[in-house]
Amino acid sequence: MKIIILNESKAADPLNHVEKRVAVTPGSAQKLVKKGITLLLEQGAGEASGYADKEYAAVGVTIIADVNPVLPTVDMLAAVNKPSEAHLALMKKGAMVVGHLDPFFQQPLIESIAEKGLTALSVEMIPRSSRAQKMDALSSQASLAGYVMVMQAVNQLPSILPMMMTPSGTIKPAKVFVLGAGVAGLQAIATARRLGANVLAYDTRPVVAEQVESLGGKFLNIDIGETGQTKDGYAKELTDEQKARQQDAQRDAIAGSDIVITTAQLFGRKPPVLITKATLALMKPGSVVVDMAATSGGNVEGSVAGETIEINGVKVIGDGYWSQAVARAATDMYANNIYNLIDEFFDDESRSFGLNLDDDILAGSVIAHNGKITNDMLLNAYRGA
Amino acid sequence: MKIIILNESKAADPLNHVEKRVAVTPGSAQKLVKKGITLLLEQGAGEASGYADKEYAAVGVTIIADVNPVLPTVDMLAAVNKPSEAHLALMKKGAMVVGHLDPFFQQPLIESIAEKGLTALSVEMIPRSSRAQKMDALSSQASLAGYVMVMQAVNQLPSILPMMMTPSGTIKPAKVFVLGAGVAGLQAIATARRLGANVLAYDTRPVVAEQVESLGGKFLNIDIGETGQTKDGYAKELTDEQKARQQDAQRDAIAGSDIVITTAQLFGRKPPVLITKATLALMKPGSVVVDMAATSGGNVEGSVAGETIEINGVKVIGDGYWSQAVARAATDMYANNIYNLIDEFFDDESRSFGLNLDDDILAGSVIAHNGKITNDMLLNAYRGA
Repeated sequence: MKIIILNESKAADPLNHVEKRVAVTPGSAQKLVKKGITLLLEQGAGEASGYADKEYAAVGVTIIADVNPVLPTVDMLAAVNKPSEAHLALMKKGAMVVGHLDPFFQQPLIESIAEKGLTALSVEMIPRSSRAQKMDALSSQASLAGYVMVMQAVNQLPSILPMMMTPSGTIKPAKVFVLGAGVAGLQAIATARRLGANVLAYDTRPVVAEQVESLGGKFLNIDIGETGQTKDGYAKELTDEQKARQQDAQRDAIAGSDIVITTAQLFGRKPPVLITKATLALMKPGSVVVDMAATSGGNVEGSVAGETIEINGVKVIGDGYWSQAVARAATDMYANNIYNLIDEFFDDESRSFGLNLDDDILAGSVIAHNGKITNDMLLNAYRGA
Repeated sequence: MKIIILNESKAADPLNHVEKRVAVTPGSAQKLVKKGITLLLEQGAGEASGYADKEYAAVGVTIIADVNPVLPTVDMLAAVNKPSEAHLALMKKGAMVVGHLDPFFQQPLIESIAEKGLTALSVEMIPRSSRAQKMDALSSQASLAGYVMVMQAVNQLPSILPMMMTPSGTIKPAKVFVLGAGVAGLQAIATARRLGANVLAYDTRPVVAEQVESLGGKFLNIDIGETGQTKDGYAKELTDEQKARQQDAQRDAIAGSDIVITTAQLFGRKPPVLITKATLALMKPGSVVVDMAATSGGNVEGSVAGETIEINGVKVIGDGYWSQAVARAATDMYANNIYNLIDEFFDDESRSFGLNLDDDILAGSVIAHNGKITNDMLLNAYRGA
């Protein structure tokens, strides 16, 4: 089995952002090579996350200057993001593409992958089961995002998070409000608590209140009637009336906060707007809002993807590439996810990836195979159903 | 008594930095006005720290657009930094100037203040006694600096500070080494510990080991023979041999650290170099060094005042305006220090500042009076003794 890793820091995305992560570390590469896998790595692929070519070469990875001649020979392209059409066009039929393929919003690309007869595994579609946890890239990156969002907010705030009692006076702890207590939200709560802030959190799923409280946060109770979560653990979309009641109740909490962090995402759909311009205008000058979803539509009206802007004296952070701010940690986690995925399905006899589509992990995450799009949820979304 | 507060954000310093702090808040202004003091504030003086003119006006402060016509009438100019010669030239004989006058390095300015017959109170010279603590601006700002230095390092580090144990793998806690455990160093230790880092600290004064350990840090013991501290609580300067032994022993700790924060300052003299270029070269790429003393000469060879640079893949932060990164908190603390100073010596009968030079706080901090420089330590330094 031959796997190639591209240098994803060579091309910028539409927001002019350059990817810093890479799909293998020297540590994970070593374990793949030990399985008998031939591992090719495009020159400089690990540099932005702190790993030099020579560290990969030392564990048996072949460093490639020009990937085009070798792409037709590989069995798998393991990536962080979606590969380019140009690279995909060079791959042989039956080869696998693994990465954050963003399938709900990349219909043309996924259709083109299917047409080429490639097999696409989208890491976002890996189910949230206890067996799949070790491959769950969305969770590993979201957890780091939660930490990073607090740190970015801290660096914009004109005061400090902890209470400070000194002979020169007392500074009260900052008030942090976290909207959405999923993986990212919980890590944001934990990080802000570590730093001594007063943390309030809200989620449409009352079931997470206990987790929030076990981290030292307070849970904001809002009665909006029946809510719930999908089988994947995502919050269900609310009705318009529920949204209105929720926003009313959150208004005071937002207005009184020094930092607000929004982490609401809906699986396969645009994220909901949680903070309107009118609510933002209630915040004190100098306060900070972090919109985790800025690059995918935004939880905050007026946030700008990839930028930190000021609206009426309030800093609104829409960076979006959260986990990459800690690129080495993000790469370590992601490389583990990719290794665990390959390890789980590696067939020792054939020395290849055992593509058992009856397995629930692969049934969910393999979205194109044998010329077809194989995921019903995706097909429904593409049909606009 | 008439006090004026200038808008110090109007002029940049030689490093092109604009001061964000101001010497009074609306809160401290209100208390001064209640004493019967006439308080004048230059337009926009509080804006950069989050306080609008109208908040000052609401508590009885007079907002001044052009300060030049009123400067000859004031009894005190209370500032954060040293005032300009142009402003000083307008003040009447016997009036007081209060602020960070940086007297050891501003001989011409202090001499000029003395020649004009002004009274200069340098907040850096306020003694470190329990009675003076509430006026101790060096300590209040250093404490915030300790917090800010950790936060700035965190935002440059490609990994996270806390240990993170997840199904996707474990990230080890970052290693932070703090050199110098004074007010700033202790706050840096406390902040890094809050965030879950492993913290090692060193100080030439073994007496602080217990404080380091009570904050959860480890103290690096180096036997360099007799050391000690001055009566003001500063570390004594070391002999060349002591310095060499200290640097040898620190080398391993520095090389193994993810973040190194240097906080060594000597009272009235240039700070010592703690990290040479050769030692810096031993650090891993991606690690971060914060040089607290960068703007006054530097603890780290090669650090650049006011900038973050990269040396062999190591980020070296020399920002220097640490407390101003949390300008509102820094202003709140400093304004308390200034209020407490005035309050301590305000004479209710004459309704003026009681300039009792027999008082040990004023004896130390009033450095020019009645046409003369009145501080012996300073006079000796000026004479090169």
